[in-house]
Amino acid sequence: MKRIASLLVAVAMPVLLVAYTPSTSRQGGEEASPIYGLTIPAGYRDWKLISVGRVVGHNNDLRAKLGNDVAINAYREGKIPFPDGTIIARLAWHEVTSEENNKALRDVDSFVAGSATNLEFMVKDSKKYASTGGWGFAQFTDGKPDSEALHKTCFPCHEPAKDQDFVFTRYAP
Amino acid sequence: MKRIASLLVAVAMPVLLVAYTPSTSRQGGEEASPIYGLTIPAGYRDWKLISVGRVVGHNNDLRAKLGNDVAINAYREGKIPFPDGTIIARLAWHEVTSEENNKALRDVDSFVAGSATNLEFMVKDSKKYASTGGWGFAQFTDGKPDSEALHKTCFPCHEPAKDQDFVFTRYAP
Repeated sequence: MKRIASLLVAVAMPVLLVAYTPSTSRQGGEEASPIYGLTIPAGYRDWKLISVGRVVGHNNDLRAKLGNDVAINAYREGKIPFPDGTIIARLAWHEVTSEENNKALRDVDSFVAGSATNLEFMVKDSKKYASTGGWGFAQFTDGKPDSEALHKTCFPCHEPAKDQDFVFTRYAP
Repeated sequence: MKRIASLLVAVAMPVLLVAYTPSTSRQGGEEASPIYGLTIPAGYRDWKLISVGRVVGHNNDLRAKLGNDVAINAYREGKIPFPDGTIIARLAWHEVTSEENNKALRDVDSFVAGSATNLEFMVKDSKKYASTGGWGFAQFTDGKPDSEALHKTCFPCHEPAKDQDFVFTRYAP
């Protein structure tokens, strides 16, 4: 048993260290979002990709949706509603033209992610957030939660996606 | 020791299972790219996000760059040249308008990832690929490698990015 235990230490520790090593620049923030009381989840920048998109209007951004393991497994298994513990992160960046890419690619126009805009999260907790479809919402700008007025708009905006458990984003193949 | 061992089994096994469970739909393909002999790396869809972008011209796509752990660590540490073992994946999808998002967001235009276009990889092996800056290249469409003629264009196109070790993509914050 001692040998098995040592083996387990040897095998398990690197995996555990990788899983739990804090990455300071990607740590969660301390301040919680109004209404929902959510902080930036630690390690979200390491989560797996759900999909990408962009919005033209206020920001002209490029965006990525990342999911924690609960979210990714639910997406891949087509599990609706999403189980408690699901967290979906929306990262976004100002879209900028890449002159460098355009020179190399010549006959196309290439756009890339510039500076970050804001950061959004949806967290599933069907009891805690029963009055908003089981979801808590949060938006952070420069690491600080945005206003209560803004957070009041989250759920009404997501309501039309009720058939997909209030989530608009589909998993990209 | 027995109790510690049991605890380790309890703690370690779920982590190990998550790390090593094969995901059939995301397995690597069998057929190798011409010139460079690269197959689709198993598990690439689970890799971490480097950045996002889009190209307007032939495809009007949305794209994501993912990196294996060697790639992500090198990016975050600003390590140039990238170490051997680095793999960068470029996923791309046809960009489609999301009428559903537009209805919810009202005064903006939202675009999302539609069906996949093709899949590209850069693999760093400074000895094996010495004549092409240490990089092997591969492009796959519907899981099959594209032509030799196409693969001859990869390195010349990447040459202008010599100062960043032939990699155009920057890490998105």
